[in-house]
Amino acid sequence: MNKEYKSYDDNLVIGRNSVSELLSSGREVERILVESGNRTGSINVILAKAKQRKIPIKEVNKSKLDSLCANSNHQGIAAYASEVKYCSVDDILNYAKEKDEAPFIIICDQIEDPHNLGAIIRTAECVGAHGVIIPARHSCGVNFAVAKAACGAIEYMKIARVTNLVSTIKELKEKNIWVYAADMDGVNAQNQDFKGAVALVVGSEGNGVSRLVKENCDVIVKLEMKGKITSLNASVAAGVLMYEILKSR
Amino acid sequence: MNKEYKSYDDNLVIGRNSVSELLSSGREVERILVESGNRTGSINVILAKAKQRKIPIKEVNKSKLDSLCANSNHQGIAAYASEVKYCSVDDILNYAKEKDEAPFIIICDQIEDPHNLGAIIRTAECVGAHGVIIPARHSCGVNFAVAKAACGAIEYMKIARVTNLVSTIKELKEKNIWVYAADMDGVNAQNQDFKGAVALVVGSEGNGVSRLVKENCDVIVKLEMKGKITSLNASVAAGVLMYEILKSR
Repeated sequence: MNKEYKSYDDNLVIGRNSVSELLSSGREVERILVESGNRTGSINVILAKAKQRKIPIKEVNKSKLDSLCANSNHQGIAAYASEVKYCSVDDILNYAKEKDEAPFIIICDQIEDPHNLGAIIRTAECVGAHGVIIPARHSCGVNFAVAKAACGAIEYMKIARVTNLVSTIKELKEKNIWVYAADMDGVNAQNQDFKGAVALVVGSEGNGVSRLVKENCDVIVKLEMKGKITSLNASVAAGVLMYEILKSR
Repeated sequence: MNKEYKSYDDNLVIGRNSVSELLSSGREVERILVESGNRTGSINVILAKAKQRKIPIKEVNKSKLDSLCANSNHQGIAAYASEVKYCSVDDILNYAKEKDEAPFIIICDQIEDPHNLGAIIRTAECVGAHGVIIPARHSCGVNFAVAKAACGAIEYMKIARVTNLVSTIKELKEKNIWVYAADMDGVNAQNQDFKGAVALVVGSEGNGVSRLVKENCDVIVKLEMKGKITSLNASVAAGVLMYEILKSR
């Protein structure tokens, strides 16, 4: 993880897109921070929305905002949201039931890079997945760098944090959910039929899906590789696979 | 662009994977920098390779290496490579001809984020594309942050830098290459037949493919969006589309 992620407030949402999505989501917002003198682009729209919802707005100078946002690109605006509420795996399954759809779940095994975790959550939202499961340990939590990379998607996605991925996978299988793991030693994903209830496990870039998790999955799927490089960026690989699954649904 | 990318040497390649790929590529390496006292993991393999090729190895302390790498995650090793050599569009086309394959080219329109550009180059290499075209202006150049995100792929990919994307696209079309642009107002990419000579234009996250470029493309393709968020990360979208193209080939 880059050093820049070491100092942040977990509840700080930064950047115009993310703050705008936060306001639309209905989630509780404690305070908006706006850069003094910066009223460009969509900032005025955001401030108008915030006033309507009677959310306190505080002006801060650029260097203060830079420092609060750990030098991330805040585009002149940030907001303190109430804490990200993790849900349970049952919440995810119930949500699928409510929508009368076969469950479609993404499981992140030890994704430590916030850019990747954020991009995976964002893609999961775009393909209509019902939730994302992350382990409580050996994984990036949903912090502000993740929220920024997710570009607002964490406001809409159900995210469950579990203590033991293997037992969660076993429970999903008992509920007739077909669990796929993405790894190099699998069958070609582009020939698979992903119809029905599915969970897709994606692993970290360095280590892939961990051995014990992989052993508990139903099918290992891989993406065709035609070049000299042997692996894709984790969020790109996850994205290609999620779209393969979407196509089958 | 994050601040951390503001101070680097364009020719510095950092991280174990990237340095290892650099050494395998046969590209000229001026010097290896290794963190004092750090001989963990694959560092010994890298140093052995470097010695074999008679590349000077210099020990530096961690804080010095941190600073040279602008606090990026160097994993104890970095290398000064000779300059990234951009090629011409004709070089890309000739390479396809040599391989007796229909050209498959990725065009990046104003991608400014080095993570995205790097991940796109990496995916392009993985799907067997013949080259990546970037504009000389309004785009991130292939600097060290791009090289790191590309995870070694820039050592193998042909990258052309052109002054005018629109005229480059016109030339490609004259050579019977079908040019696709990725944008929201297009036809579903997952029903397209991408057989034959293709170029795929991907735009920046904020602005998409620029108007004039889009007007000069043959077909606009989009990805299905099922959620509330209206856009994917640029490198994820590019990755899904590249795999769609690969499937047709």
